[in-house]
Amino acid sequence: MNSSGSDRTTIISAERIEADIEAIAALSETPVEAGHNRPTFGAAWARARDYLVAQATAAGCVHRTDAAGNIHIRHASHPWTERVWLSGSHIDSVPSGGKYDGVMGVVVPLEILRSYPALPLELVVFAEEEGTTFGVGMLGSRGWAGEFGPDVLGAIRNADGRSFLEAGAPFGVDAAKLALPPGKRDPGDRIDRDSYVGLVEVHPEQGLSLWRLGCSVAAVDRIAGRRQYSVTLTGQENHAGSTGMLGRRDALAGAAELVVELETLGLELDGTVPGTVLTVGSLTATPGAINVIAGSTTLTIDFRSSDPDLLDRGSDRIRETATRVAYDRGLECAIEATEEIPPRPMSADICERLTAAAASLGVEMKTVTSGALHDAAVVSPYLPTAMIFVASRDGISHNPDEFSRIEDVALAARILATMIETECGIAHGRQDREPAV
Amino acid sequence: MNSSGSDRTTIISAERIEADIEAIAALSETPVEAGHNRPTFGAAWARARDYLVAQATAAGCVHRTDAAGNIHIRHASHPWTERVWLSGSHIDSVPSGGKYDGVMGVVVPLEILRSYPALPLELVVFAEEEGTTFGVGMLGSRGWAGEFGPDVLGAIRNADGRSFLEAGAPFGVDAAKLALPPGKRDPGDRIDRDSYVGLVEVHPEQGLSLWRLGCSVAAVDRIAGRRQYSVTLTGQENHAGSTGMLGRRDALAGAAELVVELETLGLELDGTVPGTVLTVGSLTATPGAINVIAGSTTLTIDFRSSDPDLLDRGSDRIRETATRVAYDRGLECAIEATEEIPPRPMSADICERLTAAAASLGVEMKTVTSGALHDAAVVSPYLPTAMIFVASRDGISHNPDEFSRIEDVALAARILATMIETECGIAHGRQDREPAV
Repeated sequence: MNSSGSDRTTIISAERIEADIEAIAALSETPVEAGHNRPTFGAAWARARDYLVAQATAAGCVHRTDAAGNIHIRHASHPWTERVWLSGSHIDSVPSGGKYDGVMGVVVPLEILRSYPALPLELVVFAEEEGTTFGVGMLGSRGWAGEFGPDVLGAIRNADGRSFLEAGAPFGVDAAKLALPPGKRDPGDRIDRDSYVGLVEVHPEQGLSLWRLGCSVAAVDRIAGRRQYSVTLTGQENHAGSTGMLGRRDALAGAAELVVELETLGLELDGTVPGTVLTVGSLTATPGAINVIAGSTTLTIDFRSSDPDLLDRGSDRIRETATRVAYDRGLECAIEATEEIPPRPMSADICERLTAAAASLGVEMKTVTSGALHDAAVVSPYLPTAMIFVASRDGISHNPDEFSRIEDVALAARILATMIETECGIAHGRQDREPAV
Repeated sequence: MNSSGSDRTTIISAERIEADIEAIAALSETPVEAGHNRPTFGAAWARARDYLVAQATAAGCVHRTDAAGNIHIRHASHPWTERVWLSGSHIDSVPSGGKYDGVMGVVVPLEILRSYPALPLELVVFAEEEGTTFGVGMLGSRGWAGEFGPDVLGAIRNADGRSFLEAGAPFGVDAAKLALPPGKRDPGDRIDRDSYVGLVEVHPEQGLSLWRLGCSVAAVDRIAGRRQYSVTLTGQENHAGSTGMLGRRDALAGAAELVVELETLGLELDGTVPGTVLTVGSLTATPGAINVIAGSTTLTIDFRSSDPDLLDRGSDRIRETATRVAYDRGLECAIEATEEIPPRPMSADICERLTAAAASLGVEMKTVTSGALHDAAVVSPYLPTAMIFVASRDGISHNPDEFSRIEDVALAARILATMIETECGIAHGRQDREPAV
C-alpha cells in the first residue's frame, strides 16, 4: 500500500480548503452578490488577513510582515533563519472579482502548514497584486524585490488619494525600512536566495485550456510579458446638432476606429505567436455628453506575449496604428508607455519536480504558459520559481462567476506537499516509504 | 435723414451688451480659464440671474418667476396683462462652455428693454436649457408649456441627487402650482397665445455656415428634430492576459465597431438630407480596467435631421446596425429610445418681418435651419416663433473658444427692436418717420 499517497489524500483536507475560501469570500465588501471586493489595505482585506493569521496561529504558526506589506507565515518549528520553500499569492481582488483568484494560492499553503507542520514551507501573502486599488499591480512583491522603492510606493495612490505607503502603514509598510541599505536592512525585508529554496504559486488558470482539456492542474513554464499604454486622441469639441458630419474632428469616433484596428492587429499577432493578446479595456471620452462631439478620448492598451521579439514588433505596430488613425482624421495623438514587463521563464527544474510529484499521485500534469501576470513573475529573477494552475470553469476570471473544483485545489496542495516532501526527504510520507525501498 | 436707423444705431449699445456678456462670464464657477460653468440653480447660475434682475430693475423693469423656474422681465410701463413680444434664452451652460451660448439671447432683449422701454417686450430666461445639469434639456420651457409636469420634473435629478423641483424651489419652481388645473392656475405659469404676440430667440449659430459665408446674422426657418438612444452591449468580462483573442466577447470592441458604423451611417444620411447628423458623444465600458476585457459597454446616440421621414428611416437603420454588430460578435444588445423631438418649423411670418427689418437697416438676412435644439423649438407649437442666429467664429460651440463679434450681437438687437417697433408702430423711430410719409 502506498501509505504516502493515502496519507496525503486524507491529511490534506478539501473541506478545510473550501471552508477557508468561503470564509474569506464572506469577508468581502457587501453586497457579495455583485462579486467580491477586497481593495488592498481596506477593511475587507484586513478581515481576510486577520482570518489567515488566526487560522495559522491556531495551527502553531507565527507570522511577520515585511516592510513592503507582505505577510509571512511559518510553523513555529521552523525559525525565520531556516531556508524553506515559499508559496503564496494574494487576497486583494479586482472590483467584483471571484472567490478563487489569489485566495486559492494562499489557502493551499495554509492547508499544508496545518497538515504537514514538519515541511519547510513559508506562506506569503503579497500586497496589491491586482493593481486595481493603487493603479499598478504587484506592488508588494515589487517592493520586496527592491524594484519599487519608497519614492515610487509613496507616489502611487488609491481612490481616496492615499499612497501605498500611507494606506499600508497600519499593515507594516515602512518607508524608512524600505530605504535602508543592505547592511542595515532586516533580512526579511528583501527577497533573498539564501532564505528560500524557491517559490511555487498556486493560481486558477485564467484561460480556457485546462477546463476544456479536462485537466485538473498544470505546471506553468513561462509568464507572458506585458506592455501597457495610455493613448489620448485630441480633436475638436463641438455641438452634436449643428456641426456637420464632414466638418468634425471627433475624438471618440477616432478612438473607436483605433480600437477596431487594434483588435485586428491582436488577431494577426496571435496568429504569429499563439497566446499573444491585445486589449482595450478602458476608454473615456471628454466631455462625454450625449449632445457634444468628444474633444478628446483616452484609451488604455494592454498587450502581452510570451515572445520578447513579438512584444517589440507589436509595440511598433501599435504606435504606427494609433499615429495613422489620428493623422487620417486630423486628430492629435499622444502615446504614453505605462508599463513594460518582459516575459519571464519559470524554473524548468521546479516544473519537472512538480510533474514528478503529480505522477507519483497518479496525475498527468501538462505544462502551459501564463498569459496573466502574477507575483511569481516578479519573484522569478530572484528565486527559482514556478506555478501550478488549477482548472477554472470556462476560463472565467476577474468575474463573480469564476469557479474551480475544490478537489482540483486540494490536488494542487497534494502535489505541492509531495514535491516539498520528496525534495526534503523529511516528512513522514517519505519516512513511511523508506523501509520499503 | 433716416433718423430711425440712426437712433437705433446710437441707442442700442454694443458696449453695454459686451459688458453684460463679460459680467455674466465672470460670475461662472472658477476657474474661468477652463471654460464657463453655470449649472442650473447652482451658485454661479444664481449670480448671473441676480445680475440680470439688477440690471433690469435699474432700467425700470419688474420681474417674476413662473412655476417652472423661468424668469420673466418687463418694463414697469407694460403690465403683465398686456400682450407683448417675447424674447429670451438661457443662462445655464454646458460644462466648460463658452461666453455666448444662451447669454447672448438674454442680454439682447435686456439691452432693448434698457434702450426702448416703450417697446412691448418681455425678456424670458429659461431654466435648464442645456440638459447637462439634470440630464434632460429645455426643462424650464417644457415645464412652462405643460409638456413636463411635476411628476417628470420631480424625477429628473442633478449630480447631487436633487430633483429639478427640489433644486429649483429656492428659485420659484413650485410643484403645487404646476399641478393646478387651468381655471385655478396663475396665467403666468403656463405659456399662452393671449399673452404673447410671438417669441424671437437670439442665439449664436452652432455650425460653420454664417461665419464662413461672411454673414453677421440669419433668420432660422426650421429647427431639426432629435432622437436620442442609449445602447448597451453585453459580452463576457474576462482577464485581458489569459483570454485568447478568438475566445472573446469583448463589449468595448463591439461598441467601437458600432461607433465606426454609425459614423458611416451618419455620413450617408447627411448625403441624403444635408445637415443630418449622428453622434456618439459618450461611451462607458464596464468595469473599465486596463487589464479586464469589458463585460458591458453603454453608448449614447444623438441623431438629428430637419426631415421627419429621414428621422424615421435613420432610426430603423440605427437599430438594425446595433443589432447586427452585436449579433455578429455574440453580444447582447439593448436599445433604449431616450428622447424623440420632431423637426419644428418656425413662423414664416416672423422670419419675413425679421428679414424686412434687417433690410431697413441695410442688412441682407439669409434663412438657415438650426441643427441644434433651443427653447424656441419647445415654444413653437404654442406661439409664433422664430430665431435670429449670430455668426460664431469657426462654428465652435459648447467650448470655451466660442466667439461672436459684439457688433453682430448688437445688429441682432437692432433687427429685433426694429421688427417690434415696425409691428407696433409705437416707438419713437416710427413716430419720427410718420410726419415724413
